[in-house]
Amino acid sequence: MSQNNKQVTYDDNNIFAKMLSGDIPYHKVYEDDKTLAFMDIMPQAEGHVLVIPKQKAVDLADLEPEYAAAVLMTCKKVMQAQRQVFEREGIIQMQLNGTQAGQTVFHYHVHLIPSSIHELGRHAVTQVENDQLADMAEKLATAIES
Amino acid sequence: MSQNNKQVTYDDNNIFAKMLSGDIPYHKVYEDDKTLAFMDIMPQAEGHVLVIPKQKAVDLADLEPEYAAAVLMTCKKVMQAQRQVFEREGIIQMQLNGTQAGQTVFHYHVHLIPSSIHELGRHAVTQVENDQLADMAEKLATAIES
Repeated sequence: MSQNNKQVTYDDNNIFAKMLSGDIPYHKVYEDDKTLAFMDIMPQAEGHVLVIPKQKAVDLADLEPEYAAAVLMTCKKVMQAQRQVFEREGIIQMQLNGTQAGQTVFHYHVHLIPSSIHELGRHAVTQVENDQLADMAEKLATAIES
Repeated sequence: MSQNNKQVTYDDNNIFAKMLSGDIPYHKVYEDDKTLAFMDIMPQAEGHVLVIPKQKAVDLADLEPEYAAAVLMTCKKVMQAQRQVFEREGIIQMQLNGTQAGQTVFHYHVHLIPSSIHELGRHAVTQVENDQLADMAEKLATAIES
Protein backbone atom coordinates (compact mmCIF):
# COMPACT_ATOMS: atom_id res chain seq x y z
CA MET A 1 0.00 0.00 0.00
CA SER A 2 1.52 3.36 -0.97
CA GLN A 3 2.07 5.98 1.72
CA ASN A 4 2.16 9.05 -0.49
CA ASN A 5 2.90 12.39 1.09
CA LYS A 6 2.93 10.91 4.60
CA GLN A 7 5.10 13.21 6.71
CA VAL A 8 4.61 11.80 10.19
CA THR A 9 5.65 8.48 11.72
CA TYR A 10 3.96 7.12 14.84
CA ASP A 11 5.28 8.67 18.06
CA ASP A 12 4.85 6.45 21.13
CA ASN A 13 4.75 9.58 23.31
CA ASN A 14 1.74 11.22 21.67
CA ILE A 15 -1.02 12.20 24.12
CA PHE A 16 -3.44 9.41 23.06
CA ALA A 17 -0.69 6.76 23.33
CA LYS A 18 -0.08 8.00 26.89
CA MET A 19 -3.79 7.73 27.66
CA LEU A 20 -3.84 4.16 26.33
CA SER A 21 -0.79 3.28 28.45
CA GLY A 22 -2.41 4.80 31.55
CA ASP A 23 0.08 7.65 31.91
CA ILE A 24 -2.46 10.43 31.32
CA PRO A 25 -5.94 10.46 32.89
CA TYR A 26 -9.12 10.93 30.83
CA HIS A 27 -12.92 10.84 31.15
CA LYS A 28 -13.87 7.45 29.75
CA VAL A 29 -17.13 7.01 27.85
CA TYR A 30 -16.59 3.49 26.49
CA GLU A 31 -13.85 0.88 26.09
CA ASP A 32 -13.52 -2.53 24.48
CA ASP A 33 -10.56 -4.65 23.39
CA LYS A 34 -9.95 -2.63 20.21
CA THR A 35 -11.19 0.92 20.97
CA LEU A 36 -11.43 3.67 23.59
CA ALA A 37 -13.89 6.61 23.70
CA PHE A 38 -13.43 9.64 25.97
CA MET A 39 -14.48 13.28 26.36
CA ASP A 40 -12.55 15.89 24.34
CA ILE A 41 -11.16 18.37 26.89
CA MET A 42 -11.22 21.16 24.28
CA PRO A 43 -14.70 20.52 22.88
CA GLN A 44 -15.95 22.16 19.70
CA ALA A 45 -19.46 21.74 21.15
CA GLU A 46 -20.97 20.36 24.36
CA GLY A 47 -20.61 16.58 24.51
CA HIS A 48 -17.71 16.31 22.04
CA VAL A 49 -16.30 12.74 22.24
CA LEU A 50 -13.17 11.22 20.67
CA VAL A 51 -12.90 7.57 19.59
CA ILE A 52 -9.46 5.96 19.06
CA PRO A 53 -8.29 2.47 18.06
CA LYS A 54 -5.87 0.51 20.24
CA GLN A 55 -3.56 0.37 17.25
CA LYS A 56 -0.54 2.55 16.51
CA ALA A 57 -2.07 4.26 13.48
CA VAL A 58 -1.11 7.82 12.53
CA ASP A 59 -4.14 8.25 10.28
CA LEU A 60 -6.59 6.35 8.07
CA ALA A 61 -3.78 5.14 5.80
CA ASP A 62 -2.42 3.03 8.69
CA LEU A 63 -5.70 1.68 10.08
CA GLU A 64 -6.12 -2.10 9.89
CA PRO A 65 -9.51 -3.53 8.84
CA GLU A 66 -10.36 -5.10 12.21
CA TYR A 67 -9.71 -1.78 13.97
CA ALA A 68 -11.62 0.16 11.31
CA ALA A 69 -14.71 -1.94 11.93
CA ALA A 70 -14.33 -1.67 15.71
CA VAL A 71 -13.87 2.12 15.61
CA LEU A 72 -16.99 2.66 13.53
CA MET A 73 -19.09 0.36 15.74
CA THR A 74 -17.88 2.25 18.84
CA CYS A 75 -18.75 5.54 17.09
CA LYS A 76 -22.24 4.15 16.50
CA LYS A 77 -22.68 3.35 20.20
CA VAL A 78 -21.36 6.76 21.27
CA MET A 79 -23.48 8.65 18.72
CA GLN A 80 -26.66 6.94 19.88
CA ALA A 81 -25.75 7.79 23.50
CA GLN A 82 -25.08 11.43 22.55
CA ARG A 83 -28.49 11.66 20.87
CA GLN A 84 -30.12 10.30 24.02
CA VAL A 85 -28.14 12.25 26.65
CA PHE A 86 -28.07 15.61 24.86
CA GLU A 87 -31.55 15.18 23.35
CA ARG A 88 -30.44 16.15 19.86
CA GLU A 89 -30.43 14.43 16.49
CA GLY A 90 -27.48 16.13 14.79
CA ILE A 91 -24.05 14.57 15.32
CA ILE A 92 -21.01 15.34 13.14
CA GLN A 93 -18.48 12.55 12.67
CA MET A 94 -15.13 13.94 11.51
CA GLN A 95 -11.59 12.61 11.23
CA LEU A 96 -8.61 14.65 10.01
CA ASN A 97 -5.77 13.07 8.05
CA GLY A 98 -2.49 15.00 7.98
CA THR A 99 -1.17 18.29 9.38
CA GLN A 100 -2.42 20.02 6.24
CA ALA A 101 -6.01 18.96 7.06
CA GLY A 102 -5.68 20.21 10.65
CA GLN A 103 -4.67 16.98 12.43
CA THR A 104 -2.71 17.84 15.59
CA VAL A 105 -2.43 14.50 17.44
CA PHE A 106 -0.91 11.78 15.29
CA HIS A 107 -2.84 8.81 16.59
CA TYR A 108 -5.93 8.18 14.40
CA HIS A 109 -8.99 9.66 16.15
CA VAL A 110 -12.60 10.23 15.23
CA HIS A 111 -14.47 13.31 16.47
CA LEU A 112 -18.16 12.91 17.36
CA ILE A 113 -19.51 16.43 17.77
CA PRO A 114 -23.11 17.31 18.67
CA SER A 115 -23.21 20.27 16.29
CA SER A 116 -24.03 21.39 12.76
CA ILE A 117 -21.64 21.70 9.81
CA HIS A 118 -22.90 25.29 9.59
CA GLU A 119 -21.77 26.01 13.16
CA LEU A 120 -18.54 24.03 13.25
CA GLY A 121 -15.49 26.17 13.91
CA ARG A 122 -17.52 29.27 14.69
CA HIS A 123 -17.48 28.87 18.47
CA ALA A 124 -14.59 29.71 20.72
CA VAL A 125 -13.02 26.47 21.87
CA THR A 126 -12.30 26.57 25.60
CA GLN A 127 -11.28 23.95 28.09
CA VAL A 128 -14.18 22.51 30.07
CA GLU A 129 -14.07 21.87 33.84
CA ASN A 130 -13.15 18.35 34.90
CA ASP A 131 -16.34 17.80 36.91
CA GLN A 132 -18.52 18.73 33.92
CA LEU A 133 -16.60 16.31 31.69
CA ALA A 134 -16.82 13.56 34.33
CA ASP A 135 -20.58 14.09 34.57
CA MET A 136 -21.08 13.88 30.79
CA ALA A 137 -18.82 10.83 30.50
CA GLU A 138 -20.85 9.05 33.18
CA LYS A 139 -24.19 9.87 31.50
CA LEU A 140 -22.92 8.67 28.11
CA ALA A 141 -21.43 5.49 29.59
CA THR A 142 -24.74 4.74 31.30
CA ALA A 143 -26.67 5.34 28.05
CA ILE A 144 -24.34 2.96 26.18
CA GLU A 145 -24.75 0.24 28.81
CA SER A 146 -28.55 0.47 28.91
CA MET B 1 -30.77 -0.68 19.63
CA SER B 2 -32.48 2.60 20.47
CA GLN B 3 -33.25 5.07 17.68
CA ASN B 4 -33.50 8.23 19.75
CA ASN B 5 -34.50 11.42 18.01
CA LYS B 6 -34.38 9.79 14.59
CA GLN B 7 -36.68 11.81 12.36
CA VAL B 8 -36.08 10.25 8.95
CA THR B 9 -36.87 6.79 7.62
CA TYR B 10 -35.07 5.39 4.57
CA ASP B 11 -36.51 6.68 1.27
CA ASP B 12 -35.92 4.32 -1.69
CA ASN B 13 -36.04 7.34 -4.03
CA ASN B 14 -33.16 9.29 -2.48
CA ILE B 15 -30.48 10.33 -4.98
CA PHE B 16 -27.88 7.81 -3.78
CA ALA B 17 -30.41 4.95 -3.91
CA LYS B 18 -31.10 5.95 -7.53
CA MET B 19 -27.39 5.90 -8.29
CA LEU B 20 -27.07 2.43 -6.76
CA SER B 21 -30.04 1.22 -8.82
CA GLY B 22 -28.53 2.69 -12.01
CA ASP B 23 -31.25 5.32 -12.51
CA ILE B 24 -28.90 8.31 -12.08
CA PRO B 25 -25.41 8.53 -13.64
CA TYR B 26 -22.29 9.32 -11.63
CA HIS B 27 -18.50 9.50 -11.94
CA LYS B 28 -17.32 6.26 -10.37
CA VAL B 29 -14.04 6.16 -8.45
CA TYR B 30 -14.32 2.68 -6.91
CA GLU B 31 -16.86 -0.08 -6.38
CA ASP B 32 -16.94 -3.42 -4.59
CA ASP B 33 -19.73 -5.70 -3.39
CA LYS B 34 -20.50 -3.55 -0.32
CA THR B 35 -19.51 0.02 -1.26
CA LEU B 36 -19.47 2.64 -4.01
CA ALA B 37 -17.23 5.74 -4.29
CA PHE B 38 -17.92 8.62 -6.70
CA MET B 39 -17.15 12.30 -7.29
CA ASP B 40 -19.28 14.84 -5.40
CA ILE B 41 -20.82 17.07 -8.07
CA MET B 42 -20.97 20.01 -5.62
CA PRO B 43 -17.45 19.71 -4.19
CA GLN B 44 -16.34 21.60 -1.10
CA ALA B 45 -12.81 21.37 -2.53
CA GLU B 46 -11.19 19.93 -5.68
CA GLY B 47 -11.29 16.13 -5.63
CA HIS B 48 -14.17 15.77 -3.13
CA VAL B 49 -15.31 12.11 -3.14
CA LEU B 50 -18.31 10.43 -1.49
CA VAL B 51 -18.32 6.84 -0.23
CA ILE B 52 -21.60 5.01 0.39
CA PRO B 53 -22.52 1.51 1.57
CA LYS B 54 -24.79 -0.75 -0.50
CA GLN B 55 -27.08 -0.90 2.50
CA LYS B 56 -30.26 1.10 3.13
CA ALA B 57 -28.86 3.07 6.06
CA VAL B 58 -30.09 6.60 6.82
CA ASP B 59 -27.10 7.37 9.03
CA LEU B 60 -24.53 5.76 11.33
CA ALA B 61 -27.24 4.47 13.67
CA ASP B 62 -28.44 2.11 10.90
CA LEU B 63 -25.07 0.95 9.58
CA GLU B 64 -24.36 -2.79 9.97
CA PRO B 65 -20.87 -3.91 11.08
CA GLU B 66 -19.91 -5.59 7.80
CA TYR B 67 -20.79 -2.42 5.86
CA ALA B 68 -19.04 -0.20 8.42
CA ALA B 69 -15.80 -2.10 7.91
CA ALA B 70 -16.19 -2.05 4.13
CA VAL B 71 -16.94 1.69 4.02
CA LEU B 72 -13.86 2.59 6.07
CA MET B 73 -11.61 0.34 3.97
CA THR B 74 -12.94 1.96 0.79
CA CYS B 75 -12.33 5.38 2.37
CA LYS B 76 -8.74 4.30 3.02
CA LYS B 77 -8.24 3.33 -0.64
CA VAL B 78 -9.80 6.59 -1.88
CA MET B 79 -7.83 8.75 0.55
CA GLN B 80 -4.53 7.23 -0.52
CA ALA B 81 -5.50 7.81 -4.16
CA GLN B 82 -6.44 11.44 -3.41
CA ARG B 83 -3.04 12.01 -1.75
CA GLN B 84 -1.34 10.60 -4.83
CA VAL B 85 -3.45 12.27 -7.55
CA PHE B 86 -3.75 15.70 -5.95
CA GLU B 87 -0.26 15.61 -4.42
CA ARG B 88 -1.45 16.68 -0.99
CA GLU B 89 -1.34 15.16 2.47
CA GLY B 90 -4.42 16.72 4.08
CA ILE B 91 -7.72 14.88 3.65
CA ILE B 92 -10.80 15.53 5.80
CA GLN B 93 -13.12 12.60 6.41
CA MET B 94 -16.58 13.79 7.50
CA GLN B 95 -20.00 12.21 7.86
CA LEU B 96 -23.12 14.09 8.98
CA ASN B 97 -25.84 12.40 11.01
CA GLY B 98 -29.26 14.08 10.99
CA THR B 99 -30.81 17.18 9.43
CA GLN B 100 -29.70 19.16 12.47
CA ALA B 101 -26.05 18.33 11.69
CA GLY B 102 -26.46 19.36 8.04
CA GLN B 103 -27.23 15.98 6.45
CA THR B 104 -29.24 16.51 3.25
CA VAL B 105 -29.26 13.08 1.56
CA PHE B 106 -30.58 10.37 3.86
CA HIS B 107 -28.43 7.50 2.71
CA TYR B 108 -25.31 7.21 4.92
CA HIS B 109 -22.39 8.82 3.11
CA VAL B 110 -18.80 9.70 3.99
CA HIS B 111 -17.17 12.84 2.59
CA LEU B 112 -13.46 12.66 1.70
CA ILE B 113 -12.37 16.25 1.12
CA PRO B 114 -8.84 17.35 0.16
CA SER B 115 -8.99 20.43 2.38
CA SER B 116 -8.26 21.79 5.84
CA ILE B 117 -10.65 22.09 8.77
CA HIS B 118 -9.68 25.77 8.81
CA GLU B 119 -10.85 26.22 5.22
CA LEU B 120 -13.92 23.99 5.24
CA GLY B 121 -17.13 25.84 4.46
CA ARG B 122 -15.33 29.05 3.51
CA HIS B 123 -15.34 28.44 -0.23
CA ALA B 124 -18.27 28.96 -2.53
CA VAL B 125 -19.62 25.56 -3.51
CA THR B 126 -20.31 25.42 -7.23
CA GLN B 127 -21.12 22.58 -9.56
CA VAL B 128 -18.12 21.26 -11.48
CA GLU B 129 -18.17 20.43 -15.20
CA ASN B 130 -18.82 16.80 -16.08
CA ASP B 131 -15.61 16.38 -18.05
CA GLN B 132 -13.52 17.62 -15.14
CA LEU B 133 -15.25 15.18 -12.79
CA ALA B 134 -14.82 12.33 -15.27
CA ASP B 135 -11.12 13.12 -15.55
CA MET B 136 -10.60 13.15 -11.76
CA ALA B 137 -12.62 9.95 -11.31
CA GLU B 138 -10.47 8.19 -13.90
CA LYS B 139 -7.21 9.34 -12.28
CA LEU B 140 -8.38 8.25 -8.81
CA ALA B 141 -9.64 4.90 -10.12
CA THR B 142 -6.28 4.30 -11.80
CA ALA B 143 -4.40 5.20 -8.61
CA ILE B 144 -6.54 2.75 -6.61
CA GLU B 145 -5.94 -0.06 -9.10
CA SER B 146 -2.18 0.45 -9.23
